[in-house]
Amino acid sequence: MAFGWIDEQARLRRRAGLVRTLRPRPAESPLLDLASNDYLGLAHHPAIAEGAAEAARTWGGGSTGSRLVTGTTELHTELERELAGFCGFEAALVFSSGYAANLAAVTTLAPHGSLIVSDAGNHASLIDGCRLARGTTQVVPHSDPEAVRKALRTHEGPAVLVSDTVFSVDGDAAPLAAYAEACRERGAGLVVDDAHGLGVLGDGGRGAPFAAGLAGAEDVVVTATLSKSLGSQGGVVLGPARVVDHLVNAARTFIFDTGLAPAAAGAALAALRLLRGEPERAARARAVAAELHARLTAAGHEAVRPDAAVVSVRAPSPEGAVRWAADCRTAGLAVGCFRPPSVPDGISRLRLTARADLSGAQIERAVRVIGETRP
Amino acid sequence: MAFGWIDEQARLRRRAGLVRTLRPRPAESPLLDLASNDYLGLAHHPAIAEGAAEAARTWGGGSTGSRLVTGTTELHTELERELAGFCGFEAALVFSSGYAANLAAVTTLAPHGSLIVSDAGNHASLIDGCRLARGTTQVVPHSDPEAVRKALRTHEGPAVLVSDTVFSVDGDAAPLAAYAEACRERGAGLVVDDAHGLGVLGDGGRGAPFAAGLAGAEDVVVTATLSKSLGSQGGVVLGPARVVDHLVNAARTFIFDTGLAPAAAGAALAALRLLRGEPERAARARAVAAELHARLTAAGHEAVRPDAAVVSVRAPSPEGAVRWAADCRTAGLAVGCFRPPSVPDGISRLRLTARADLSGAQIERAVRVIGETRP
Ligand SMILES: Cc1ncc(COP(=O)(O)O)c(C=O)c1O
Ligand SMILES: Cc1ncc(COP(=O)(O)O)c(C=O)c1O
Repeated sequence: MAFGWIDEQARLRRRAGLVRTLRPRPAESPLLDLASNDYLGLAHHPAIAEGAAEAARTWGGGSTGSRLVTGTTELHTELERELAGFCGFEAALVFSSGYAANLAAVTTLAPHGSLIVSDAGNHASLIDGCRLARGTTQVVPHSDPEAVRKALRTHEGPAVLVSDTVFSVDGDAAPLAAYAEACRERGAGLVVDDAHGLGVLGDGGRGAPFAAGLAGAEDVVVTATLSKSLGSQGGVVLGPARVVDHLVNAARTFIFDTGLAPAAAGAALAALRLLRGEPERAARARAVAAELHARLTAAGHEAVRPDAAVVSVRAPSPEGAVRWAADCRTAGLAVGCFRPPSVPDGISRLRLTARADLSGAQIERAVRVIGETRP
Repeated sequence: MAFGWIDEQARLRRRAGLVRTLRPRPAESPLLDLASNDYLGLAHHPAIAEGAAEAARTWGGGSTGSRLVTGTTELHTELERELAGFCGFEAALVFSSGYAANLAAVTTLAPHGSLIVSDAGNHASLIDGCRLARGTTQVVPHSDPEAVRKALRTHEGPAVLVSDTVFSVDGDAAPLAAYAEACRERGAGLVVDDAHGLGVLGDGGRGAPFAAGLAGAEDVVVTATLSKSLGSQGGVVLGPARVVDHLVNAARTFIFDTGLAPAAAGAALAALRLLRGEPERAARARAVAAELHARLTAAGHEAVRPDAAVVSVRAPSPEGAVRWAADCRTAGLAVGCFRPPSVPDGISRLRLTARADLSGAQIERAVRVIGETRP
């Protein structure tokens, strides 16, 4: 039978206790949410919903074509201008997802004959970008500027270093300044994914590259998603205008993909404007993360000190992590649970996300539940 | 300079007259649209905009996480159930784009050691899927079941044939029945992308696989986009429940991507329900395409007989195609323009799309403008 081999894989997964299932949530969840990436608590903000609704009414349900044919509206251009301005870059290009933005940036900036140096902790979408790119990839140990330096020294010609700014699993920040320095010594480009930095790090949430003084640099390209802090969907590449022009002409996930839906562009634009008017949201998300970490550590948990809004708590085993997360859920708390094969290092953990709109009482309750359900 | 090599590529592009630029459109375009993929004229339907608006208000601006964490709402499940039911498949899985759905289907159904037979006319997203998959790809001549048969005979073990159902450039249909037969002789799976078939082909728009009697078959997997006939954004994989379970567990563009925005899911669901209530829309899109083709041919143009809603008109040269499309635009008509390197065969053409809501007078006007501007 054509797809018969799938059953054997399913059996192995079941036996290993690694089956993933979808758990549809209702509109009004009774759970306290420490699992989403809605760092600023904007996804459910009425202004964002209204931004989506208004855009759908004005521009239609879909963008109706590739960005190069009918899929670019003035709304897309407005969003791109404001994203570039906010993050401090010359130009911006919006995609249907952060995944698509990452595939675009890596494939178009690593041509045949080039070297891609890739941090071992990078997100799946950057890794897929490396796999699709014509350049040769060299994976270097996580957050190790010396290893980057060594890798770059082995190569003449175009090279890029590709890294998350904040790693999605443990929430630790990349050594951006040291990475930029290593690149500059060799004239290499720096391509960083600020999915978990935008809206959280930097002055008023301008992102990790802004915080590191790299915004607007001619050798730095930043990707980000509109689906986390901005509470919408979509991705963006920020950089010099010439790089953005290059992507318009060469990025397959731009050219051969339908433009971002107007509602998503409208929601992201509303979120960006809201953040501009309430810059304290970014600092609040960081403060909530710090408080979560402090309380968890005080309660004896092994948690990684958060550099942004993700707090990672070590679990004793894959099964332990799954049980822990399930018990939290039973007690009314939604937390993320990362375990092999999603984590390259094999370490299972609970992944908690801080939100700017979590109250002190909610933080306390979350820490209490995590303690009481500890396996 | 890090990205200095880009400038040389830009210079070559300029010299070859191949520079692509974005042309943002206003909300109320004065142009007659024969360029979008809004085949049923639903993107601007008030019910679809209301579906998006209502979903954003109820479910938020974004889905807030991976479908496996917080990104699956009951709205996603509802959309999946209705898509599967409409197209005649056991199960469906919704993605953030058709591009992501194609990457998911091809990579997860072509494991290490398997063979992927890929039609030479396939869409970029299927090609990228082949590149990312662990299996070995063999490209076969366009719409050639004998070549498929020959390729499949060279391989023992899991194999899939990957093809568009309607090819995006020329609008011609794949020989689906013959493809299925070739696959079944060897126990190979058939993975087809119905991006341009859903909503247009099959009884009431149920798609090309439904029309070919392949809906619900255990050896057939269909991908489609929510961004064309359904006037929204997103992608879907349709197939046996075991295949969908496999994707939930293994597809990187599902696991590591934020779930489709509620507004996009809501818009697609509204479009699907509208299509169910007005099944004549599908036939009308096909009739408009046939009329466009007949009139163009009568006027002496070389046009491909449309199998769905795309009508391709041959242009004398890449520059001729660009000038032709530009002159159409000046005369108030938006048409697509395909030329190298977007077309693998090197043939430049205008790409016209029929819409169910085009009037006879609009078709007449379009054909007149195309004739008057012919280079
Ligand atoms: C670091 C990182 N990059 C990229 C993405 C993909 O962005 P999107 O969900 O918008 O496709 C994610 C998560 O979704 C992420 O965590
Ligand atoms: C045949 C085909 N498959 C897939 C896609 C990608 O779908 P989406 O735009 O939803 O990513 C397209 C065009 O956009 C297409 O023409």
